[in-house]
Amino acid sequence: MTAYDDSNVFAKILRGEIPSVRIYETDEVVAIMDAMPQSRGHCLVIPKAASRNLLDASPEVLAVLLPEAARLARAIKAAFAADGVTVMQFNEASAGQTVFHLHVHVLPRYAGVDLQAHGSGMADPALLREQAEVIRAHLA
Amino acid sequence: MTAYDDSNVFAKILRGEIPSVRIYETDEVVAIMDAMPQSRGHCLVIPKAASRNLLDASPEVLAVLLPEAARLARAIKAAFAADGVTVMQFNEASAGQTVFHLHVHVLPRYAGVDLQAHGSGMADPALLREQAEVIRAHLA
Repeated sequence: MTAYDDSNVFAKILRGEIPSVRIYETDEVVAIMDAMPQSRGHCLVIPKAASRNLLDASPEVLAVLLPEAARLARAIKAAFAADGVTVMQFNEASAGQTVFHLHVHVLPRYAGVDLQAHGSGMADPALLREQAEVIRAHLA
Repeated sequence: MTAYDDSNVFAKILRGEIPSVRIYETDEVVAIMDAMPQSRGHCLVIPKAASRNLLDASPEVLAVLLPEAARLARAIKAAFAADGVTVMQFNEASAGQTVFHLHVHVLPRYAGVDLQAHGSGMADPALLREQAEVIRAHLA
């Protein structure tokens, strides 16, 4: 298992070294808008604790992620009138992982609309900030 | 939100009404081999508690699922010399959900090999039993 390297993009976001569009933050996680969304409202749950992915994360860190994903899933479903929500989490490059800090994708799904390819383009940050605001308004 | 319907396949498996290839069981979950694997070693974590998906599940039920997925992920990576692991969880039909009892897919990934389409074929139960045995031997 490759060791955790804190030069990854999410570590920089957690340290405030590069910008992100935050939705909310708890003691354990930050929820942000994905900068390269695969569907309208695509967001991420990122634990603050350092781990490369699921394979080296502690049970305590992992335990909080799906409850937070569910909180986001309910909010984005209501915020964007989505028909469903896909949750994805990638471990190592062959599984689709591109940023090597553990994170969970929460993707609103719309009937008849396929997910866009990962990394197919950067979203307008102003639009992401608007979406984050709408999601926050729907958080339980 | 559509109400939980206990006539789904996983509810029947949990009640022992139809067969499945079990890997292990805890007080909260069962881990089984997916009968229509999308990659060699594809397995599922299914909570015993009844919920349709992430959207109606309690935080307590959700909290146990990723730690169990990680336990399986480490075992299958070692068992099959996989290069990575993809975790997926679908909510509602438009997101890819086909069985309406909450479950998490744990998919070994092999470099250069795409996932097979969901439902592209039933695996040989004898092969799945062999794989479950190999996974059990690698559980921490």
